[in-house]
Amino acid sequence: MTPAFRRVAVVGTGVIGRSWGAVFMRAGVESRLFDPDPGQLTHAMDWLQALADEWEAKADQATRISLGRVHRCNSLAEALDGVAYVQESGPEAIATKRALFATLDASAAPDVILASSTSAHDMTDIANGLAGANRCVVAHPVNPPHVIPVVEVLPGRATSPDVVDATLAFLTNVGQRPVRMHRYAPGFLINRMQAALVREAISLVESGVADVDAVDTVIRDGLGLRWALFGPFGVANTNADGGIREYLQRYGSAFQAIMNDLGPTPSFEAEMIERVARQTDAAEGGAPVAALIEWRDHSIERIKRMREEHPHPSRPTGEALHGDH
Amino acid sequence: MTPAFRRVAVVGTGVIGRSWGAVFMRAGVESRLFDPDPGQLTHAMDWLQALADEWEAKADQATRISLGRVHRCNSLAEALDGVAYVQESGPEAIATKRALFATLDASAAPDVILASSTSAHDMTDIANGLAGANRCVVAHPVNPPHVIPVVEVLPGRATSPDVVDATLAFLTNVGQRPVRMHRYAPGFLINRMQAALVREAISLVESGVADVDAVDTVIRDGLGLRWALFGPFGVANTNADGGIREYLQRYGSAFQAIMNDLGPTPSFEAEMIERVARQTDAAEGGAPVAALIEWRDHSIERIKRMREEHPHPSRPTGEALHGDH
Repeated sequence: MTPAFRRVAVVGTGVIGRSWGAVFMRAGVESRLFDPDPGQLTHAMDWLQALADEWEAKADQATRISLGRVHRCNSLAEALDGVAYVQESGPEAIATKRALFATLDASAAPDVILASSTSAHDMTDIANGLAGANRCVVAHPVNPPHVIPVVEVLPGRATSPDVVDATLAFLTNVGQRPVRMHRYAPGFLINRMQAALVREAISLVESGVADVDAVDTVIRDGLGLRWALFGPFGVANTNADGGIREYLQRYGSAFQAIMNDLGPTPSFEAEMIERVARQTDAAEGGAPVAALIEWRDHSIERIKRMREEHPHPSRPTGEALHGDH
Repeated sequence: MTPAFRRVAVVGTGVIGRSWGAVFMRAGVESRLFDPDPGQLTHAMDWLQALADEWEAKADQATRISLGRVHRCNSLAEALDGVAYVQESGPEAIATKRALFATLDASAAPDVILASSTSAHDMTDIANGLAGANRCVVAHPVNPPHVIPVVEVLPGRATSPDVVDATLAFLTNVGQRPVRMHRYAPGFLINRMQAALVREAISLVESGVADVDAVDTVIRDGLGLRWALFGPFGVANTNADGGIREYLQRYGSAFQAIMNDLGPTPSFEAEMIERVARQTDAAEGGAPVAALIEWRDHSIERIKRMREEHPHPSRPTGEALHGDH
């Protein structure tokens, strides 16, 4: 099932919503943008115009990209007109999400998929009691989605499996890399794994084992170089000549001992934040955050291009494998 | 203090030791290789010759690399002749390390630094009772060190601070990216952070939240793209326009809740290993491990080259910042 949704809506056009606009613009899908704050919407349209100009300058005729298929809508009803899919990207508070999904479910035609960018909430809660709970699904991107392709797709208890499948297929079609979660867990996959790493990173600094610069360096110039190519299982598979079985059999008990010694959840009190932040400022050498974000986004594009030119031995097109396991 | 050690020894020439040989060969440092197993030593010399040929084919005259400064030694005494630094890369068992360091301490001239590639042991234990415990230090690389630059440098209780400083300076000079640990912790920095991520990855698969392919994809096409550029603190710094303070203040309590929900240490029993391994085989599409390792190493070289050509805004030379925090 690979639905060719020709027209979609983006509801909420902050940092995440406008980046979804960029994803759809690049894919040549007609997108209808709405935000209850007209200033936010203006800002998003200006940002998309600048991005379209930047892409246009780089593109050849065949990959011409323009703002022509991105529409500014002045009401939710106008945004929902004729769309097959809605990417909700409003504020993260659960009450706001619930109210917004109630409105979307009441307003959108019955077969429209309602997908939320939420990074925190369970669709079981957001769509609880809605007539159309079966068409509501989480599609959580990594910020910013037009740069980082992965999207976590997961059902609430009432979500139809067909809706999950169609969402996975649609997001693949527009160039993202959606992954299927079988069910909700707090933080989904991405923020759970990020939290696992950050917890230990803070613990190492707070317990005086090493400073921020050392911890960041071992990721950036060590583990991170592998994680841009393989996930943790793929890394384990290349850490022994005999593959992942040999690796886990040989090092499992050593890893188990380390896992049992990992540090506790930190307090996040003001003093800890300031200590860590001051060391981070020094490690980043005083570069403005905006300059770092720009470097990050361009560098990620370059890594992705490199991987496309030199793909994984079993992924010759650069596409993810879609096993049915 | 940046000592220009002109001659060093590599003791133990398995996968790690031979890769250290490649690091020193590339840096133009004279290295003296010894292994009690002559077959292992022959294998390492052949491997280095092949690598030298590969580099030679790529290099211009100015960066000419050859095996000329790598010496095969038939005894430990011959290997230690006139060296300033020893990179011990023998078997990982603590009894073997202790015996080897006792021999090295008895055999090497008094001012020679004795560095161990150990990934597991505390130098306090390895050098316990040795007259030269003050010159013994851990310098643990990520495999393979000639591809992945980071090295964890840490003292035992008796290690002289000067020895740590000189080791950090020497490894920087030969093109590695050493980091300073203030003291031992099981797994050091790298394997602790790897264990934190792997623990949660296995837990997500074992609890049925997602499959191996989904977990690996969110790292490879999500978090890993950022971790090839920034460590966890650098990522936090770019996750809010106001930098790391704003990020930790705003999301600290949400992250705390996720951290408190993370999964337990897995059992590493045979059934779990087989389940995870079968899914990993499918996700990797049947590519042979050797082909994956080759792709990994070449891809990492390309990422490093890309970062050198387009450096971090505050690291214009591609060098790590060396703050004194």
